[in-house]
Amino acid sequence: MSEKKDYAKLSLAAHREWRGKIEIQPRVPVKNKEDLSLAYTPGVAEPCLVIAKDPAESFNLTRRWNLCLVLTDGSAVLGLGNIGPQAAMPVMEGKCALFKAFGDVDAFPLCMASQDKDEIIRTAVNIAGSFGGINLEDIAAPRCFEIEAALKEKLDIPVFHDDQHGTAIVTYAGIVNALKITGRDIKDTRIVMNGAGAAGIAISELVLNAGCQDLLLVDSRGICYEGRPEGMNKYKDAIAQRGNPQKRSGSLADALVGADIFIGVSAPHVMTTEMVKTMNKDSIVMACANPTPEIEPEDAYAGGAAIVATGRSDHPNQINNVNAFPGVFRGAFDVGASEINMEMKLAAAHAIAEMVTEEELANKTITPEAFNPEVAKAVAKAVAQAARDTGVARR
Amino acid sequence: MSEKKDYAKLSLAAHREWRGKIEIQPRVPVKNKEDLSLAYTPGVAEPCLVIAKDPAESFNLTRRWNLCLVLTDGSAVLGLGNIGPQAAMPVMEGKCALFKAFGDVDAFPLCMASQDKDEIIRTAVNIAGSFGGINLEDIAAPRCFEIEAALKEKLDIPVFHDDQHGTAIVTYAGIVNALKITGRDIKDTRIVMNGAGAAGIAISELVLNAGCQDLLLVDSRGICYEGRPEGMNKYKDAIAQRGNPQKRSGSLADALVGADIFIGVSAPHVMTTEMVKTMNKDSIVMACANPTPEIEPEDAYAGGAAIVATGRSDHPNQINNVNAFPGVFRGAFDVGASEINMEMKLAAAHAIAEMVTEEELANKTITPEAFNPEVAKAVAKAVAQAARDTGVARR
Repeated sequence: MSEKKDYAKLSLAAHREWRGKIEIQPRVPVKNKEDLSLAYTPGVAEPCLVIAKDPAESFNLTRRWNLCLVLTDGSAVLGLGNIGPQAAMPVMEGKCALFKAFGDVDAFPLCMASQDKDEIIRTAVNIAGSFGGINLEDIAAPRCFEIEAALKEKLDIPVFHDDQHGTAIVTYAGIVNALKITGRDIKDTRIVMNGAGAAGIAISELVLNAGCQDLLLVDSRGICYEGRPEGMNKYKDAIAQRGNPQKRSGSLADALVGADIFIGVSAPHVMTTEMVKTMNKDSIVMACANPTPEIEPEDAYAGGAAIVATGRSDHPNQINNVNAFPGVFRGAFDVGASEINMEMKLAAAHAIAEMVTEEELANKTITPEAFNPEVAKAVAKAVAQAARDTGVARR
Repeated sequence: MSEKKDYAKLSLAAHREWRGKIEIQPRVPVKNKEDLSLAYTPGVAEPCLVIAKDPAESFNLTRRWNLCLVLTDGSAVLGLGNIGPQAAMPVMEGKCALFKAFGDVDAFPLCMASQDKDEIIRTAVNIAGSFGGINLEDIAAPRCFEIEAALKEKLDIPVFHDDQHGTAIVTYAGIVNALKITGRDIKDTRIVMNGAGAAGIAISELVLNAGCQDLLLVDSRGICYEGRPEGMNKYKDAIAQRGNPQKRSGSLADALVGADIFIGVSAPHVMTTEMVKTMNKDSIVMACANPTPEIEPEDAYAGGAAIVATGRSDHPNQINNVNAFPGVFRGAFDVGASEINMEMKLAAAHAIAEMVTEEELANKTITPEAFNPEVAKAVAKAVAQAARDTGVARR
């Protein structure tokens, strides 16, 4: 607790000193008339005319090819909730710094004054031609699903909601290794997914597409099933139909009986040692609520869990999005991908999983070290290849 | 001609190699968990909460204070006309590179897909909270006036259309020195302003506010006067009422008889040696049409002009916006100005004028060397002081 307090104070002081965590730098000399004649007038007219004739040349003659818009409305920022656009900016600047440091992606943050779905879509469409891709960030569900779907339909550049897909990729990467260690096949694995917001829906989709045939999505009202009278929506419905065709119902505790994997993106301490005891032998517990997990690692191990992961950097097996988004966009941008599809997300997850060595696996480590610069490179390579394989690469 | 052809070819090749003239760089280390705990989670929550409580803190805790949006719809780019948003980007990136190199201003370019006035306003308002100021660029008249007016009303950050006000500042700076050299007072000076688009209107406003009492605004239909049956608009009307209360009418040639200063932001070679001969003794000719001026300098001198300026870098006395916009925003940002008002623009012009030495003035040089880094510093200082003096500085 005191450590967290110190970080708050230290971080505020650091932010006051930094006055911004990103800046915009020229990549060309503009020191004399000759420089200016090439980078600006009169020479610049020529690249302008070439793009006017063929807008696809904007990916060759400007920074567009490497430029990612980080867009938020500030409605679901960290664990802070709806703090509004300006207050979201320190998080967005941090994200952009990570994009560059780990993926060499130029990312620029915009915080929207409106939280109206149509207004956000409209604004994004108006400015999308200046970017090579869009990373949606910290937008509340279910608005985030609709915004993402609309932008994917309207735009021919990658649109990726990191809170959904980045989280899904790193979570599934951890699961891949946990399955290896515990000798399971995802096809025979029973998964309980607790939390049916942006991340929970996306993780469910990814693991179902990876082959899982038994997944119970659980929200604050219990297990989601088709026809449940309250608190369902079309996103939960779609998952329930695929993962729970038997329309099982009940509480989180009910869902966990006989389950192999618990995944939580929900609330602090909703899971107990007793519940873990009801899971199958060598259970896998991914308690990713931040900053306080659904169950503390020691309590999960006490219930018989073989492997425990959390979202915290001070525990082992941190499920950390920084392992995914820089490499995902790096790979997509490297081949001029028009979208980031399911195959690319699965490829990213497997690439992350493979960065964990045999020795680490033997120690029940399922996630790579977050500051290993090789992770983003491996992810980028796998994502680029998957884009080519699925025909969405333009270069 | 062959030189221009070479620049086109060289510039296109350079742009292909550069693949973007700006990039986004982190200003903070993000190499390990400790770094991330301050710049990102968990520490970043604290600056977020501080801004949520007081949005003005966004100017202290994020890059907002130094961040300028360069916004265009691509409707009036260089001499190329309406080439659309993506084709405008090489110009906008060049502009952003100049902002940083000369003013240490972080400028980010956005090219709008829509050329609808209301859509542009709406989009800008939606994203303005991420910026400390907005530089409108290459937006056609009269749309540019309406967009600027609406944004000034809706936003409490500086909004500045460089094609209008930047051009007006550097043009008036040249006039200040030309008046010194020819021993005139602006109050007794007859000015002919040829061109009634964005730049012509803004130059007219600035010189009228500087004290000029006789200004004839001339467009393709001749002298503008209140009640002229065709081709007037409210912007031309306002200038005509102030500068031409006598409702003089006629052609450009008529306007020039007995004039002291010709300013052109119009079309190639619309001015002749004969016309210059009808102007007052020691006339001042600012022929700023680009790339081909209204009259070639040698032809103006042949008509008796004492001083000639153009927009071209290969002639002496270049009227170049780079002397204004980086310092104007630097000064406005340094004091957290809520707007860029008339006093700040006049102060900028005088600061630029004063960068020309006595020796240069003796040689009929009226503009400072465009790559003198001291110009932006002097402009910034003068603009910041004017902001304080007029009560629009927030720091």
